[in-house]
Amino acid sequence: MDSETIQKQKAEVAQAAVKYIQNDMVIGIGSGSTMWYLIEELGKRVQAGLRITGVPTSIATKAHAEKLHIPLKTLDEIDQIDLTIDGADQIDDHYQGIKGGGASHLMEKIVATNSKRNMWIVDESKLVPTLTYPVPLEVIPYGSRQLEKRLQALGLHAKIRKTTDQQFVTTDSANYIIDLSITAVPNPAALADQLNQLVGIVEHGLFLDMVNTIIVQHEDGPQIINVR
Amino acid sequence: MDSETIQKQKAEVAQAAVKYIQNDMVIGIGSGSTMWYLIEELGKRVQAGLRITGVPTSIATKAHAEKLHIPLKTLDEIDQIDLTIDGADQIDDHYQGIKGGGASHLMEKIVATNSKRNMWIVDESKLVPTLTYPVPLEVIPYGSRQLEKRLQALGLHAKIRKTTDQQFVTTDSANYIIDLSITAVPNPAALADQLNQLVGIVEHGLFLDMVNTIIVQHEDGPQIINVR
Repeated sequence: MDSETIQKQKAEVAQAAVKYIQNDMVIGIGSGSTMWYLIEELGKRVQAGLRITGVPTSIATKAHAEKLHIPLKTLDEIDQIDLTIDGADQIDDHYQGIKGGGASHLMEKIVATNSKRNMWIVDESKLVPTLTYPVPLEVIPYGSRQLEKRLQALGLHAKIRKTTDQQFVTTDSANYIIDLSITAVPNPAALADQLNQLVGIVEHGLFLDMVNTIIVQHEDGPQIINVR
Repeated sequence: MDSETIQKQKAEVAQAAVKYIQNDMVIGIGSGSTMWYLIEELGKRVQAGLRITGVPTSIATKAHAEKLHIPLKTLDEIDQIDLTIDGADQIDDHYQGIKGGGASHLMEKIVATNSKRNMWIVDESKLVPTLTYPVPLEVIPYGSRQLEKRLQALGLHAKIRKTTDQQFVTTDSANYIIDLSITAVPNPAALADQLNQLVGIVEHGLFLDMVNTIIVQHEDGPQIINVR
C-alpha cells in the first residue's frame, strides 16, 4: 500500500471508531499517527455538544486534545475508563499486539489496564500472521547499556533507540527505549514472561490478551473484529 | 535488641565486610544505615591507599562516598562489578531478602544484577524464618492510585508511601513507592511472579536467589554464610 492510501485508511478508521463514543463516557485516548485523526474527530464532536471526559496516554495526546477543548482528567482523578481507543504497531492472528513505536507504550498500557474495554484502530497494513515488528522496551536509564548487552547475549537483538542526531530517545517518564529487532515473535507470551523478569525494564511493548474490539480499515470499508 | 546494640552490630559488620575488598576491584556500594558504616570504613581504607572503583546505588550513597574521596563510576562506565555490598531489610531461612525500606531498591537491584558476587551485611535482627517486612514496590506515579486499589483488591494491603507531612515519597528515579504490608511471605517467588506481571510496577523489593555471601553480626562476632 502506498503512503497516501495508509493515511486515508487512518482517517477513515478514526471516523468508524468515534461512533462508539457516547455521552458521559470516560475515554482513554491513545497516541500515534492514527490517533491523531481520532482526536481531530473527537474534537469536532465535542464542539458539537458531545460530553465526555478524556484520559490521555502521552504528553503529545494531552496537548492535542487540550487544543481542541476536549475535557481531560488524569487516570487518578477518575474511577474507571469506559473505553480506551488506541492504535497498534502490529496485530497478529491471535489479536496480540505490539505498541511503542512512538515511545508511549508505558502510559498506554497503564491506561489500557484501567479500562473496561479496549479498542485498537488500524489500517490493514498492521495485521500480520506473526509479530515481526521490533518489540520496544521502556527501560531505566541507569544501567541501560548493561541491559542492552544482557539482552543481546540472550539473542534478542537489542538496541537503545536514538534520535537521528544520536541522542537517546526519552519517554514522557524520562526513561530510555530499547528496541528488540527479533525476526519473528511466534510466542509473545513466552517473550513477555522472559522480559517481565529482567531488572531495569519498566514495561515491554507486547499488549497481550488486552484488546476487546479491533477496527481494521480496508479499501472497501471498516472491518469490526469483536475479540472478547 | 536495643537500638544501641543494633548500631554497634552495624558498625562491626561493616568492618568484617570491608576485609573482602581488595585492590583494583569494582565495588557496588549499597544504601541504607548499615551501608553508612561500610562507606565510612571504605573511605578510611581508600585514604590509606586502597585502590578501588565504587559504583553507588543511590544519590545519598554517591554523595557520602564522594565526600570521602572514594573513586566512583556509573554502572555504564564499567564492564562488570566484582562485588556489591549492601544491607537488607529482612532475610529468610532460604536467604531470600526484602530491600527497599530506604526507597533505593530499584538502583540496588540494577547494580546487584550486574555484579559477579553480592554480599549482604546485616545485624542479627534482620534474620527471620519467613519474610514479614512490608514489600516495597517502586511504581510509576501516573496511575499509582489505581494500582494501589488493584493491589488492595488482590489482598496485598497496598499503601502509597508518604512522608510524615503527607507528601508522596519519591525515589531517585522520580517514582513513587507502594508498600505491601503482607503479614507473611512464605513463597516469595510466587509473589514476585505476580508482581512482575502487573503494569505500573517498575521493580519490587524482593531480592531472590541473588545473594552469594551474608555476614550476620552477632553479639559475639560476625557469622559468614556462604550461600552460593
